[in-house]
Amino acid sequence: MKTVVGCLLNFRGAWTAMEPAMHQEPHFKPPRHPVLYLKPPNTWRRDGDDVVLPAGVQEVEVGATLGVVMGASASRVAEADALSFVAGYAAVNDVTVPHTAILRPPIKQKCRDGFCPIGPMVPRGALQPDALILRAYVNGVLGAEHTTAELMRPVAQLIAQITDFMTLEAGDVLLVGVPENMPRARAGDLMTVDIEGVGRVNNTLRAQGDAP
Amino acid sequence: MKTVVGCLLNFRGAWTAMEPAMHQEPHFKPPRHPVLYLKPPNTWRRDGDDVVLPAGVQEVEVGATLGVVMGASASRVAEADALSFVAGYAAVNDVTVPHTAILRPPIKQKCRDGFCPIGPMVPRGALQPDALILRAYVNGVLGAEHTTAELMRPVAQLIAQITDFMTLEAGDVLLVGVPENMPRARAGDLMTVDIEGVGRVNNTLRAQGDAP
Repeated sequence: MKTVVGCLLNFRGAWTAMEPAMHQEPHFKPPRHPVLYLKPPNTWRRDGDDVVLPAGVQEVEVGATLGVVMGASASRVAEADALSFVAGYAAVNDVTVPHTAILRPPIKQKCRDGFCPIGPMVPRGALQPDALILRAYVNGVLGAEHTTAELMRPVAQLIAQITDFMTLEAGDVLLVGVPENMPRARAGDLMTVDIEGVGRVNNTLRAQGDAP
Repeated sequence: MKTVVGCLLNFRGAWTAMEPAMHQEPHFKPPRHPVLYLKPPNTWRRDGDDVVLPAGVQEVEVGATLGVVMGASASRVAEADALSFVAGYAAVNDVTVPHTAILRPPIKQKCRDGFCPIGPMVPRGALQPDALILRAYVNGVLGAEHTTAELMRPVAQLIAQITDFMTLEAGDVLLVGVPENMPRARAGDLMTVDIEGVGRVNNTLRAQGDAP
């Protein structure tokens, strides 16, 4: 795994919530291309690892998303072929510090240490990625439920659009987007992202200085 | 090397050129924190590697910058200690597609395949990073000359501010910023970034489909 790239505003509800702002300054119109961001290696964690709440942060969003794990080097891939470049899928928690400012790159909100727990990969097999149920839980309580049928750009289209300008390698992970109104977690809470047919990723949010 | 993180607007002239816009919508005031971006692994190249000009792109900016190579895991490092976490320095070409829109993450401008050639590292030794001469050449013709004395945030301060919220590991590279008015290169051009006392990185910009 070398690169984890995510896409903002890819769930219809998340897009709709931001749409009024898209028509105002400074852009005056919605983005035509995927709005991407990166989750660098300091963010990567596995299922079961603790996530340390950064100093000065009270709560984080549990960002339920589908991780698409690439199985081969993919450059300028056609949408019709895109899924054949996929090795498998994983439940990912795209942890984010809640923020309202949206016009600077969200590095400080999305790239904190431990902010990208990635669950075990299930091989692609016959799995179709475009109608999977995603659920986010805090301490086992369901906080949000969505389906990848709500994606503005389905998985194959997203792979085609990203590899149009950036080569993805085997093991790289594409995050398809986070739905609107995700639940929030505080120190001591167990965060869970579950995707039907794929699996789940569980991580406890630990306060700074607490023993692991 | 796992993460390459860069800082926008860190040369005084680059800041000054953008400053009028900083006081307008949507921010109304200059950024108080470093504005960061990432150069993912698909961008990494070595001295002497060709860089392929992306389809549809006519020219690129040669982005002369100093690469600070970390020597140890660094989290919440004090400015006074920051340089002791540095293994060495390298000349880096932060290649960028020229663009005027600045309010979306510049992924498509900065994260194209091959857009981050990194020269050989020289060990830190007694090298002081705050008054190094940077030069950018196209086909051996000097296009721009600056010094790291023009940095708004010198190297030690930048390390302190970034590691305040993001752990950098040994081998990670911090790009200190690109000066204003960088020269542009087209297909067939040799791009060179040279830093006195550090070294240089040379890369030919090759058209799509041309033989390597």
